[in-house]
Amino acid sequence: SHQRNAFAPPSEPCLAPLQWEGRSVEYDHSTGRNTRALLSYDGQNQRIRLLQQNKRHAPCQKYFEFIYLFKSEVLFQIEQKTKQCSKIALTQAWDPFDIPMNSTYEDQYFIGGPGDMIEVQEWSDRKPARKNEAWVGVYTVKDCYPVQETYTKNSSVTTSTRFFDLQLGISDPEVFTPPSSCQSALPERMDYDC
Amino acid sequence: SHQRNAFAPPSEPCLAPLQWEGRSVEYDHSTGRNTRALLSYDGQNQRIRLLQQNKRHAPCQKYFEFIYLFKSEVLFQIEQKTKQCSKIALTQAWDPFDIPMNSTYEDQYFIGGPGDMIEVQEWSDRKPARKNEAWVGVYTVKDCYPVQETYTKNSSVTTSTRFFDLQLGISDPEVFTPPSSCQSALPERMDYDC
Repeated sequence: SHQRNAFAPPSEPCLAPLQWEGRSVEYDHSTGRNTRALLSYDGQNQRIRLLQQNKRHAPCQKYFEFIYLFKSEVLFQIEQKTKQCSKIALTQAWDPFDIPMNSTYEDQYFIGGPGDMIEVQEWSDRKPARKNEAWVGVYTVKDCYPVQETYTKNSSVTTSTRFFDLQLGISDPEVFTPPSSCQSALPERMDYDC
Repeated sequence: SHQRNAFAPPSEPCLAPLQWEGRSVEYDHSTGRNTRALLSYDGQNQRIRLLQQNKRHAPCQKYFEFIYLFKSEVLFQIEQKTKQCSKIALTQAWDPFDIPMNSTYEDQYFIGGPGDMIEVQEWSDRKPARKNEAWVGVYTVKDCYPVQETYTKNSSVTTSTRFFDLQLGISDPEVFTPPSSCQSALPERMDYDC
């Protein structure tokens, strides 16, 4: 049977890998914008590199590279064509791609078809009878890779991010080093449009 | 490398299975409501049975069974506790869980982690330079099972539905037969709240 109500929920979330590379699509529900990117995730050193991918040829649309260095509290934003660089204070707290230990187990299921599926678990920061969820994470049961993360505010989803083509480790640690154009960086975030 | 730009897009979408059972979660972006359900899909006979699942114990929340019979253009809505039944004219057109032949190929990628992943394709009804997408479907490459379907209106997502625990075939065709309480059915849709 496909009904899994008899399943005993796990007592603790799995431990997500600390370093990986892959692709992501973030859907921003307020703007309706999908942002595709190549992602390098270094949880060990609290840094993320995000290279936006030009999927459709929108006229006059800029594509950026983002280097988040949470330990130094700085974000570099680099325009991919001109290499123009902005250096911005990173005020948000480090939020790793993992399942915090005090998370609430929500569900477990298989994605895919018979003979070709992955088993995933859903966890959230919901506190039963006290607090609705602001975050829901879907992670693989085997090896705990992220599949989807959803953020909610006032019971409306704000962003949902899907992850794929994930590989363990960082193939080139140099991606976290800003280009030389960042030595004379702008102090403000650059806009997407021309 | 995880970059798959060199991949040659397929010329035709895969053929989705005609009958399957599984679970679904539909997220309605306008209401912020997640609807979890057991789903029996019979594309052969153009009928769908959806049994809402009571996940959280919300006070005074009703849970329904829906039996969509598209060939007869009728929808039965059955309250799960009381078996109270509504019989409603089904005006919407049959929209199978598959990838229409004239769809636009969007992307192909692996979900999961190394050694534990499924390969999926994204297709949409976008017409390059003519029409933005109103539908995006994510289906497994092997056997063409649905993973996610997203509907968009005026470039904002309206609903996104994820599918899981899918099994081929219909284990009990009787699920498409309305209960006897539907012989004296209400003519209007029932509300969710008490």
